Amino acid sequence: MRIAVCPGSFDPVTFGHRDIINRASTLFDKVIVVVTVNLNKKPAFTAAERIVFLEKVTAGLENVVIDTWDGLISEYVRTVNACAIVKGLRAVSDFEYEFQMALANKLLNENAETVFLTTSSENMYLSSSVVKHIAAYGGDISAFVPKVIIKDIEERLEQLRNDPNFVLK
Amino acid sequence: MRIAVCPGSFDPVTFGHRDIINRASTLFDKVIVVVTVNLNKKPAFTAAERIVFLEKVTAGLENVVIDTWDGLISEYVRTVNACAIVKGLRAVSDFEYEFQMALANKLLNENAETVFLTTSSENMYLSSSVVKHIAAYGGDISAFVPKVIIKDIEERLEQLRNDPNFVLK
Amino acid sequence: MRIAVCPGSFDPVTFGHRDIINRASTLFDKVIVVVTVNLNKKPAFTAAERIVFLEKVTAGLENVVIDTWDGLISEYVRTVNACAIVKGLRAVSDFEYEFQMALANKLLNENAETVFLTTSSENMYLSSSVVKHIAAYGGDISAFVPKVIIKDIEERLEQLRNDPNFVLK
Amino acid sequence: MRIAVCPGSFDPVTFGHRDIINRASTLFDKVIVVVTVNLNKKPAFTAAERIVFLEKVTAGLENVVIDTWDGLISEYVRTVNACAIVKGLRAVSDFEYEFQMALANKLLNENAETVFLTTSSENMYLSSSVVKHIAAYGGDISAFVPKVIIKDIEERLEQLRNDPNFVLK
Amino acid sequence: MRIAVCPGSFDPVTFGHRDIINRASTLFDKVIVVVTVNLNKKPAFTAAERIVFLEKVTAGLENVVIDTWDGLISEYVRTVNACAIVKGLRAVSDFEYEFQMALANKLLNENAETVFLTTSSENMYLSSSVVKHIAAYGGDISAFVPKVIIKDIEERLEQLRNDPNFVLK
Amino acid sequence: MRIAVCPGSFDPVTFGHRDIINRASTLFDKVIVVVTVNLNKKPAFTAAERIVFLEKVTAGLENVVIDTWDGLISEYVRTVNACAIVKGLRAVSDFEYEFQMALANKLLNENAETVFLTTSSENMYLSSSVVKHIAAYGGDISAFVPKVIIKDIEERLEQLRNDPNFVLK
Repeated sequence: MRIAVCPGSFDPVTFGHRDIINRASTLFDKVIVVVTVNLNKKPAFTAAERIVFLEKVTAGLENVVIDTWDGLISEYVRTVNACAIVKGLRAVSDFEYEFQMALANKLLNENAETVFLTTSSENMYLSSSVVKHIAAYGGDISAFVPKVIIKDIEERLEQLRNDPNFVLK
Repeated sequence: MRIAVCPGSFDPVTFGHRDIINRASTLFDKVIVVVTVNLNKKPAFTAAERIVFLEKVTAGLENVVIDTWDGLISEYVRTVNACAIVKGLRAVSDFEYEFQMALANKLLNENAETVFLTTSSENMYLSSSVVKHIAAYGGDISAFVPKVIIKDIEERLEQLRNDPNFVLK
Repeated sequence: MRIAVCPGSFDPVTFGHRDIINRASTLFDKVIVVVTVNLNKKPAFTAAERIVFLEKVTAGLENVVIDTWDGLISEYVRTVNACAIVKGLRAVSDFEYEFQMALANKLLNENAETVFLTTSSENMYLSSSVVKHIAAYGGDISAFVPKVIIKDIEERLEQLRNDPNFVLK
Repeated sequence: MRIAVCPGSFDPVTFGHRDIINRASTLFDKVIVVVTVNLNKKPAFTAAERIVFLEKVTAGLENVVIDTWDGLISEYVRTVNACAIVKGLRAVSDFEYEFQMALANKLLNENAETVFLTTSSENMYLSSSVVKHIAAYGGDISAFVPKVIIKDIEERLEQLRNDPNFVLK
Repeated sequence: MRIAVCPGSFDPVTFGHRDIINRASTLFDKVIVVVTVNLNKKPAFTAAERIVFLEKVTAGLENVVIDTWDGLISEYVRTVNACAIVKGLRAVSDFEYEFQMALANKLLNENAETVFLTTSSENMYLSSSVVKHIAAYGGDISAFVPKVIIKDIEERLEQLRNDPNFVLK
Repeated sequence: MRIAVCPGSFDPVTFGHRDIINRASTLFDKVIVVVTVNLNKKPAFTAAERIVFLEKVTAGLENVVIDTWDGLISEYVRTVNACAIVKGLRAVSDFEYEFQMALANKLLNENAETVFLTTSSENMYLSSSVVKHIAAYGGDISAFVPKVIIKDIEERLEQLRNDPNFVLK
């Protein structure tokens, strides 16, 4: 059985992420979507919330499961005996950073092959940051995230906006 | 009457910004330069100060006015009934980000067409960050910003440099 | 009256070009689409054919006219007294080349301001080359070019494919 | 059984190509390496020669077979019922072009998912063009292509160099 | 005597940095590696620690010395009468930023010529950030930094990880 | 004595090239500008003409000499015992290609260190192709090439334009 790991902060999950997960699920026997807990990002949503969002959004994809991890992805790949790390590619800046990580992960775990997929063109320039930016200002995010999580996102961003210490990333 | 909106943080305005505003003023009947108040940026200058800088720098351009906004630009465009958002393009990293915003703004407001202009080559690699970096170290910024605002910038950056909580962005 | 010039080889015109022309027509009083006759390109279609394609595709846009030119665009801009050159931007490689041309045109004619517009995301990665590539192999090009010119394109590319001297660019 | 198609001109195959094919062979049940016969490229080696090179280089990889195709790759993918097109990614210019083709192929065949793999860092900036350039001047290509095909490449390029009509691409 | 200045945050020094310093030492009579104290970066290691790391790593390079500076690099270049600023180039995002700084430095000091060198391909995608990321999670960093400083880095990052205010940059 | 080699097609030399040669002449004891005779380029000017242009343009730079070479640059570097290859960097597409060549040259000759310099910002987007394009159409090229070679370039391009087999590259 070939297992792929699909890591990300998913803060929150967008149509672009969902598209990548869908595509990965047709290429591998099992896809584990991993919510990463990074030291260098202060997320708008807790890991638990992001998992719930992903579960709602991937409901119906039978070979997809959700997990969380606060270590190196190369280590997680080893633990679950995966053959691939799946990443969506959007644009040039993504590309450089992801190359760097792909090479580092390969050095840390020889079996951690990174596989890049593209989203459909309408999601090519979509990011979680844009979604949070629009939601923080009360804009309409229905073109960017699945319907089942819109209300949760809107409420959180409104709340964050009123927090004087909040800095949108 | 065709109105264009020219949004930015202008923290502070540079020769590059002035060049873009000049060019926009020849293409549209009216140009509104909008100082955006972003949740994700801690500016070195207040919105009021940035407006004063812009007013000094655009004095003499009769069809240019200055305004400020703390919401979505697509919403501002709707409010003033503009036909275009004008942005200056400098380099590849700008380009990717601006593409993303242009597509998002078009989705949020079908009439918010983003128009990209280039600065002259000597300003192509100039940014507000570089200006603040140089001013914070007491360097000469006269090649980068108009004469009328140099002293204000130098004083502020010297003051910020001595603030232990200040982090230059 | 503000006139914009929209130059290109349009060999053949695609949905991406049509989108840019549409957008330009809302920003300027008159848009002249100019089929350029370049020394460095051997087109698949004659200038006359490309003009007919453009006329079919822009029918209904009242302030758009089609023309052809075999000199420098900066010179054409001067001749028709235009205030802007409109170009669509797709991706990084476009961007670098177009920057170069924009700066050169500005040097050759101070009034030749280049204005970059983006296409909608579904056309962002579409080019005339891809269209010709697919048509040369008998593929379906209906997702890329307007219906009224599909048959003409298919016939020409089939014919070119059987020409032993033909090299697809 | 999941089949991946790995298309390219392989003119000639390099260590970079071999690396990508190796990696693909661990991710899919079967990998078909397809020598494409393009209208827009005048290869240095015939399709038959390129196939022989690939067979030598992939000897020992049991789930890899070599084929040739002179049509659209999306059509080939349909014919062999593959689930993925595998491409190696090297650098920014690759990236833009490959994005364009990936989106076009997806439109032409909904099941033609393009999967991008990276080569190891020492092959990241290696291309068939560089190999031919060096060989044409009698340089040492042993760092770039497998030993079993070096002599064939050197002989062909020396011969081509003396052909007055030859233009190295 | 031609002197080159090699500035950076070196937080910490990596194999990529060492490679650039080695190469610079063959091109100039004297190379001064300068640990910059930036207002916009909160380093993981103090300037004193970073100097010690660099001294260990460059031991044996007779024409290389280490220094520190908390002002503009163009000013430092003037002070030591250097003819060049040496920078390593890794990838596109580096490239844009470094261009900007090179042009600004040239404006600030006409003699501050920036010279870009490339690292060997295995270090091309290596950065101090990746090293800190891996070390913070207890991963193996021996492929990225010289042996003599591994233990120091591991201890510091473990300590930082347990600091609730620590944000990895 | 440190010798640098500055290779290029210089077809024809521009202000950008002259700027790079000037800068290189301050960094090295001797700079050899090498007109390369490439198999993959059909130049507008013969090697002999390009040498004459370069001699005119570099007159007065005492440590600069002009030469020509029809082999691998790494071989030339070995022959003259140079320590560096100097290249000007303009934009992203240059960058990728030059990286590839720098790594290949280093593999072919361990002492062939490539050193990248930037031109001043007004030449950043200038290329020989743009010069030939403008001259072929009778445009004014005085902003792009030194005065002493303008007439020669204009005459040649006018002549080439009337050659039915001429394709501008």
